[in-house]
This record gives sequence, structure tokens and C-alpha cells, in this order.
Amino acid sequence: MNKWYENTESNNDVVLSTRIRFARNLEDYPFPCRLDAQGREKVCHAVRDAFSDVSGLKLKYIEMQDLTEKQAVALAERHLISPDFAVPAKGRALLLSDDESISIMLCEEDHIRIQVIKSGLDFEGAFKLADDIDNLLDSKLKYAFDERIGYLTQCPTNLGTGMRASVMMHLPALTKCNQISKLASTISKLGLTLRGTYGEGTSAKGDIFQLSNQVSLGISERAALDNLKAITMQIATQERTAGEEFVKNVNVLDRITRAYGILSSAKLLSTDEMLELFSWVRLGAMYNIIDADIAKLNELTETMQAATLSCSKGEDLTSDKRDEIRAEAVKQALKK
Amino acid sequence: MNKWYENTESNNDVVLSTRIRFARNLEDYPFPCRLDAQGREKVCHAVRDAFSDVSGLKLKYIEMQDLTEKQAVALAERHLISPDFAVPAKGRALLLSDDESISIMLCEEDHIRIQVIKSGLDFEGAFKLADDIDNLLDSKLKYAFDERIGYLTQCPTNLGTGMRASVMMHLPALTKCNQISKLASTISKLGLTLRGTYGEGTSAKGDIFQLSNQVSLGISERAALDNLKAITMQIATQERTAGEEFVKNVNVLDRITRAYGILSSAKLLSTDEMLELFSWVRLGAMYNIIDADIAKLNELTETMQAATLSCSKGEDLTSDKRDEIRAEAVKQALKK
Repeated sequence: MNKWYENTESNNDVVLSTRIRFARNLEDYPFPCRLDAQGREKVCHAVRDAFSDVSGLKLKYIEMQDLTEKQAVALAERHLISPDFAVPAKGRALLLSDDESISIMLCEEDHIRIQVIKSGLDFEGAFKLADDIDNLLDSKLKYAFDERIGYLTQCPTNLGTGMRASVMMHLPALTKCNQISKLASTISKLGLTLRGTYGEGTSAKGDIFQLSNQVSLGISERAALDNLKAITMQIATQERTAGEEFVKNVNVLDRITRAYGILSSAKLLSTDEMLELFSWVRLGAMYNIIDADIAKLNELTETMQAATLSCSKGEDLTSDKRDEIRAEAVKQALKK
Repeated sequence: MNKWYENTESNNDVVLSTRIRFARNLEDYPFPCRLDAQGREKVCHAVRDAFSDVSGLKLKYIEMQDLTEKQAVALAERHLISPDFAVPAKGRALLLSDDESISIMLCEEDHIRIQVIKSGLDFEGAFKLADDIDNLLDSKLKYAFDERIGYLTQCPTNLGTGMRASVMMHLPALTKCNQISKLASTISKLGLTLRGTYGEGTSAKGDIFQLSNQVSLGISERAALDNLKAITMQIATQERTAGEEFVKNVNVLDRITRAYGILSSAKLLSTDEMLELFSWVRLGAMYNIIDADIAKLNELTETMQAATLSCSKGEDLTSDKRDEIRAEAVKQALKK
């Protein structure tokens, strides 16, 4: 089965992927931080069992303690779990669809964290799927819900809808023209956050940023999504306007064609360099300066990360060996 | 007519070119530094006239004062005149063959500086041609010659044979493995000098070094050449031995293939970067890691230098424009 990032249909020039996350808790159990391993296991099993007789939705049940550290880190690299969740602990589990578009963390900060990823800009698709899963669980389990406040969550910032919606945006021109910090400060005034690839406090590798809603209390899912979508489109327009001017510069053209040249010829490639060069190549492809299969780059962005690569080869690869395999995979991908 | 650097027959892996230079002076005139412009002009005309009835040897007579600064610098870039000779002054002239293998500076430090360049390792060919020209002039002009000392020259370091022989050597492995300074110090003990591309005190651009004899007094031309040739071969062997080991390293392979990738894709290329990347590509070609037309690179090394490029386009090109033309020319050359 294709992974979500292999889906090229809704591929988009600026928006790489759309994500919806719901935080949910069960009424009959204290929050995970107040549960011992046995208690957490009970929650995990309860949620797992809720899916047992559902046809048409196949989810793998993975107990986090069964994974090696590398396997857990690989899941975090692909944004399927939070980095905190990759730390081994009993009584934590993950429900994961084959295409990796649905991942449900059990007993992370909340009992249930439903996440849906769709490639490109697709709030409707992502929300619909997350909502379906949410309704299904709601029909079988008793959510902690308050009529006035909404869904109850461990952290007050998630109260209300419990929804965090986000898009991964590739903003090369705005980044390279130093317009991001101004943009981020404007955005924060609109109740949204623009931050690095792996969330708060992380840098934006390959000029890829995460734009997400901040407020989940006192605003409906629909209103939050409409707001986020409108701002996403606005930023995309800003990026395109900046980009159009930017690529007229011969120095920029040079960076773009060199990036392609290096990716097509290197024998060693670190993840950071790959992402930095991908950024130039994506930029070039956006303006038809070079011909590159962007969907393939998106896929490699996920699969060529350190732990994911080691896991897929079933070996504990050295950094040098990974750099070699990565370089070769990228070269082959650009050839096609 | 092909330039000497377009001659691919005697192309060599380590030795790019061979040069012979004779310093000569006329008995009837003081050294150039003691002559006024009129006196220098007389010397220039006397030498020019000596060639007038020689068939089979066509030399252009160029008065240095007729050249623009750029044209003069372009000649120095291609080693056809010394950098000092590019400074405009009356009473200086150059005799130049169409293929640029013969260049005779008139009233530089000495009255006559005969230079012959041959591509690859070719002491015999270069010496034979320089010697023929020398004999021709000797038969028509009266050289300043002392039975005991030999040819008289302004600078005592040229007394004796007045001959300076040199080879341009590409020493990438020895350079990148930091073995050059040790080598240079050993060589200086053997009466030879290893120095940068443009002679004393210059850096070695693209890992290209000039190896030359230091002593012209008390040693015959033949003995000096035999000595120089033996050391040249020895250094070439050292380079090959170092190179064979060096290219086994995947980091080195990476640098080689990237260099080729960048040269094949860049939109802008400075002379320094071009020479640095050429060095990696030559290294790769030496060990069949990549397929590149080295003779073409040798040609571009000459023709793509700043002033030479501007002169060939007949325009006063900006640095950016030159970088663009250079990048395009290199890309086209690698395609073939």
C-alpha cells in the first residue's frame, strides 16, 4: 500500500501536507500522568478493542515497549508520534494505518491522540477522516467531555475542541529573503503559530515550516479550520510573489541548478544537506527552472531520514553508510 | 590554427605543459633598464628584423604600448608574457606565434626572452624549437656572450645558459594530503623550485604547480634538462602513488563527483572555483572515476580566465557576466 506521502494527486507547490490532531480522554480513567503502567495498558486495550469489529479500517496495534529505540525514533521522524512518545515506557501504544495517514497515540499526554495526515493542502479530507475515527470511538467509549468547556485534556491549551490542525509549508523564498520572523510575529497575533519542522523550538529544515492553530477553546472546528486555511492561502500567495521575483536573480538560478547538480552527483549526502538542497530544487521546479519529480522528493524527505533509513534496511547503519545510501537513492530518484 | 593548449597528442596525466625560456642580450646595447624608450625601440626593431626573411616561422610583432591593459593582462594570464611586462611602457614588444607556443618578449628584464610552451611533458620538443630560434637570432645578431661565464644577463641568476626550463604539474593528491611543503623543501635542495601557477610567491590555483630549474651557471642545458626531467618523473610517480590511495576514500569520490556535478550545472563560475573543481575532475579522470575530456579542461583553464575571456568577446565584461559565460562554456565542454 502506498504511504500517504507517496500520494501525488493532491500534491501542492507550497503546502506539502495537512494534519489534523484530536486530543481525547476517557472519562473513567485519570490522565496518563496519573496512571501506572497497568492503568495505561487498560486504556490502550480499551481503545484497541473499540476498533476490533470495525471493517474497512485496518490499524496496526504497536506496543511502544516492543520497539527498538531506532524504530521509535523512525516513527517520530515521520511525524507519526511525538518525540516524547519515542522514549520507551510501558503502557503506551500506537495504532497505525498501513499508509501511515492515520496514527493514534495511546497514553501520550492524553489517553488518545488521533492524527490524520494528508499530502498537499487538504483540510477537508484530513478533517473528515479524523472526525470519522473520532465519532467511531465516541460511540464505543465514554469521552471526558464537559458541556461548557468541551473535550477535557491534560493541558489547558488543548481544552475545547482538542483539535490542532496544521500544514507543512515549504517557504524557500520567504526564508532566503529573511521574511520569516516578521511573518511569524504577524501570524502569532492571528492566533496561529509558524514554527520549525518538528514543532516548537525546532529549526525549519529545508525551509519547511509548520503552521498551526493555537486556540481550541471558544472556537468551533469549522471556524478554526477556515481561519487556518485562509492564512495558509495568504502565506502561499506571499511565497509565490516573493519567489517569482527571487528566481529572476542569476545567483538564485545558480543555487537552484547547482543543488540539482550536487544531488545528481554526490556520493555522500547528510539529511540536513539533502533537505537544504531539496529546498532549492523544489523552488526551481515551482518556476519550471528545472524538471524534478517533487512528489518523489517529498517521499525521500520522509524515507531518507536517519532512523527511518536504518529501519528500512533492517540494519544498524553507520552515519557514513546512511549518507552513501541516501546519496544513491536521491541520484536514482532524480534520474527518473 | 590550434593553440598549443589545444594540442591533445602529448597530453599527460600529471604534466600539463613544458616550457623553455632563454634570456639573451645584445652586445651593442646596454641592458633595457639602462636604455631610454628610443634605445629599447631600436633593440625591438633589430630583433623583429632578424625574423623578417625567415620562412616557415610566422611571428606577430606586437608593440606593448598598442595593447589595452586588458589585452596585456590576458597575455600574462596565458603565461605568454610576465606580469611585469603587462604594465604599459614604450619600447617593449612581443613576438608571438599564432599557436602561442612561441612568445618572445623584447626589452623585458633582458633584451630578448625566448619562450616555447608545449603541452604535456615534452622537454625535447620545447628545447629543440627554442634552440632553433636561438640559433637563428645568434646568426643574425651579436649576443652578449662571455667564453667563461656564458650568456650575459641583467640578473646574475640567469647567467650561464640563460635557460629556465619548467613544467606545469597537476598535483591534487599531494596537495590535498598536505605533502607539498615537504616536497618543495626537498626539491629546493636539488637545485629546483616548486612554486605557484604564476611563479614566485603566487598560490597554486587548482593544485597546479610550476617546477623549474634554479641554476643556469656551471651546468649545461642538457644536464639541467635531464635533471629536471628525472625529478619531474619522480614527482609524477609520487602523485600517482598518493592519488591511487586517495581516491579509495569515499569522501574523495564524493568531492570528485560533486565537482563534476557542479561544473555541469552551475550558472555562475568564478575562475578560482573553476580551477579548484577542475582539479577534482582531473583527479577523477586520472583514475577512471569519471569520464572527462582533460584536454578540453586544459584549454578552458587558459581561455576562461578573466582578461582572456573579455578580450575574446571583444567587450569589457562585468565579473558576473564573465562568471555566466564561463559556467556556460564549461557546461557545454563537459557535455561533449
